[in-house]
Amino acid sequence: MKDVVIIGAGLAGTLMAIRLAQRGHKVDLYEKRPDLRKTDISAGRSINLALSDRGLQALAMADLDDKAKELVIPMHGRMIHSIDGHKTLYRYSGREEDWINSISRPGLNSLLLDETEKYDGLQVYFDHDAARVDTINKDITIKTSDATAKLDVSDKIVIGADGAGSSLRREMQRRSNQLRYNFSQTFLDTGYKELCLPAGPDGTFQIEKNALHIWPRDGFMMIALPNLDASFTVTLFMRFDGPNGFDTIQSDDQIHALFDKNFKNVKNFFPDLIHEYRTNPSSSLGTIRCYPWQIDGQFLLIGDAAHAIVPFYGQGMNCSFEDCLILDRCIDADEGNWDAILKNFQSIRKQDADAIADLAEDNFYEMRDATADPVFNKKRQIELALEQEYPEYYSKYSLVTFKEEIPYHKAMALGRKQDEVLMKIAANTDDISQVDLAWVFETVKAVDG
Amino acid sequence: MKDVVIIGAGLAGTLMAIRLAQRGHKVDLYEKRPDLRKTDISAGRSINLALSDRGLQALAMADLDDKAKELVIPMHGRMIHSIDGHKTLYRYSGREEDWINSISRPGLNSLLLDETEKYDGLQVYFDHDAARVDTINKDITIKTSDATAKLDVSDKIVIGADGAGSSLRREMQRRSNQLRYNFSQTFLDTGYKELCLPAGPDGTFQIEKNALHIWPRDGFMMIALPNLDASFTVTLFMRFDGPNGFDTIQSDDQIHALFDKNFKNVKNFFPDLIHEYRTNPSSSLGTIRCYPWQIDGQFLLIGDAAHAIVPFYGQGMNCSFEDCLILDRCIDADEGNWDAILKNFQSIRKQDADAIADLAEDNFYEMRDATADPVFNKKRQIELALEQEYPEYYSKYSLVTFKEEIPYHKAMALGRKQDEVLMKIAANTDDISQVDLAWVFETVKAVDG
Repeated sequence: MKDVVIIGAGLAGTLMAIRLAQRGHKVDLYEKRPDLRKTDISAGRSINLALSDRGLQALAMADLDDKAKELVIPMHGRMIHSIDGHKTLYRYSGREEDWINSISRPGLNSLLLDETEKYDGLQVYFDHDAARVDTINKDITIKTSDATAKLDVSDKIVIGADGAGSSLRREMQRRSNQLRYNFSQTFLDTGYKELCLPAGPDGTFQIEKNALHIWPRDGFMMIALPNLDASFTVTLFMRFDGPNGFDTIQSDDQIHALFDKNFKNVKNFFPDLIHEYRTNPSSSLGTIRCYPWQIDGQFLLIGDAAHAIVPFYGQGMNCSFEDCLILDRCIDADEGNWDAILKNFQSIRKQDADAIADLAEDNFYEMRDATADPVFNKKRQIELALEQEYPEYYSKYSLVTFKEEIPYHKAMALGRKQDEVLMKIAANTDDISQVDLAWVFETVKAVDG
Repeated sequence: MKDVVIIGAGLAGTLMAIRLAQRGHKVDLYEKRPDLRKTDISAGRSINLALSDRGLQALAMADLDDKAKELVIPMHGRMIHSIDGHKTLYRYSGREEDWINSISRPGLNSLLLDETEKYDGLQVYFDHDAARVDTINKDITIKTSDATAKLDVSDKIVIGADGAGSSLRREMQRRSNQLRYNFSQTFLDTGYKELCLPAGPDGTFQIEKNALHIWPRDGFMMIALPNLDASFTVTLFMRFDGPNGFDTIQSDDQIHALFDKNFKNVKNFFPDLIHEYRTNPSSSLGTIRCYPWQIDGQFLLIGDAAHAIVPFYGQGMNCSFEDCLILDRCIDADEGNWDAILKNFQSIRKQDADAIADLAEDNFYEMRDATADPVFNKKRQIELALEQEYPEYYSKYSLVTFKEEIPYHKAMALGRKQDEVLMKIAANTDDISQVDLAWVFETVKAVDG
């Protein structure tokens, strides 16, 4: 049984390490950062995430779903805040049992790291930077604060779970011509800045706890996800340039004016708005696609290292966890034949990674623009009524989020067809209470011909 | 007047250096390779190219077009070699005065390098590798065989004309998040291998001199361009994998069988076929797109460094030379304001670089597959008749190749519309001599409404 080296003790790398240890592999997990359980949270990383069914299914593979559920706050829908402070909750699904979960990234990562300690064959090396992977000489240059050494991996499987700046992916870039390595990175002209909306003085949630809050505005938006300590992590998404842009809005007056005009109903909940706006970074948002993901049946990219996406579908972590599940199934199918395992994995998974990347970009425009559009909201209400009346009906959002047995690329294809039909129906409907749901159901079902 | 540093003394870098010296700038041109006039041709680089009207127009800007014309062999059309050895010449244009020119890359580069010596303010440094450009500290690390030094460029304009592996582009990659630097590289599954078809024993051309020869086959092709010494540079384009693939065809028997079956009419002209096939590399073919091309109105990519394309439209060099012409026009428009010059240049030029990249990929399939298709060849004949009868009509190929006053992106848009109409007409035509050309002309002209 092959020994495995995994680079990156983030979410995907740690889950994969645990699963491979459960399968009996000796696993060495290298992480360039210190142990996050013993340090402050690193600045600039999104500190809460949406965990949904695909992620939970993958955690269940390692028997960790119940433990994760102890850390979550359910979010049943989108709470849309209009500019005049009016709030409307649009549920994510017409089925009672469908919701998504707000979870702390470092909290979940800590849970996984704690779990690694149960396996004798699994060793985690913090502060060990796998700075260069050499797939020809089959070694990895590992840097620590006081030494640089080469790790011989000629007889090992190497998994790069080292995120958007992956060092294994850099090696693929270096060998581009030989591997005919296709690669793209695309940035949105919109960036993000995180702010903290703290708990109320009495430790209560200052806005609705069980929702993902959205303030959709003209060309920008703000969102908020709840934390266990009753605070919310708030993220402001704006362009860098132009009138409502991070580079433009810099003075105290401009920051106040932005919030007075657009986010008046929560402005007073930010005790430290000006300082946070000034101090917290405005970060960019990009999509990374590449192929191949593996070299020689020995070196493999998973997670963000293979497919970094924008955060607007809440699927980044879920997709990376699902990678671990699919890889585990590929190992089941071809146990011992790593060449087949890695090639099958990339060939199954590439189309799904591309689909969720597209969906995530689309959802940015949906959240920012469409959630303020009456026709879109009628369509959402028709869909929710459909899901209530016909539980076997899944909207695009539900297919992606709650229907983990359907691969992303199929969810996207079917969901887009359904959307087209439903938007037409919504545009021609004045009073949604008068819609003939049975007819709508048959019409929408027909697109899946 | 700003001093200029140019990285890369290839075709675009050297032409731009000459032009800027003519404008009165002090120019330092750094080239990592030795002076190609004093060394053998470096292996693996395509040794002849197609020079056409856009390239000639750019050379004319520096008064170098007439000198270049002394080095060329006109190619009036595509000579299509069928599998049974039948040859048909399809002219590139119905106008007598339209043709493209085969030219030696090192020959043309030598001409340009000779020209640099005429300008006191222009200095070329060979064997100087601009290994790293630092756009924050504004310096360039220059490596020679015996030293590494930093060149301060804080007060200079820096132009990266250093090809597909550009070190200035690497700096943009390093600063991706900050610059929101979009980038993609895409490889074809087809690669190429160069072979030499030498002059005949009496110094004559063994196949038609004034043509670009094509042997279109099922999923692969071979082409040949003439050289001044009566030899031809032959390029075999095949997939890497599969039955007719470089990785598959390796034994003497397989190489003989490939040529016996597909290239029988010229096989005996290759005296050294087996050895050359074995020894010459099978190289990959890729497209590189990126944006932005400039940083801070000071650092700029041009040529392949900004937009490497596949070679199938014969426009790589022409496009890079045209970059120099457009940049020169931008300098005219905003003389002294480099921020405006560089931003205008990238904003004008990006869409044209994207268009020629698309056209070049399309033309691979046209050359490989369509040139063997009867409907396509009928369409080409109708087009040539149109161009003869109505000289103001330009086919897509002619718009791209012979109509240098129309930008690539407009040539592509118009040409594609014309192609659509003409392919329909060709598909419905049995005898092209019976086509009503006046009607076709009016029909095709109407698409440009």
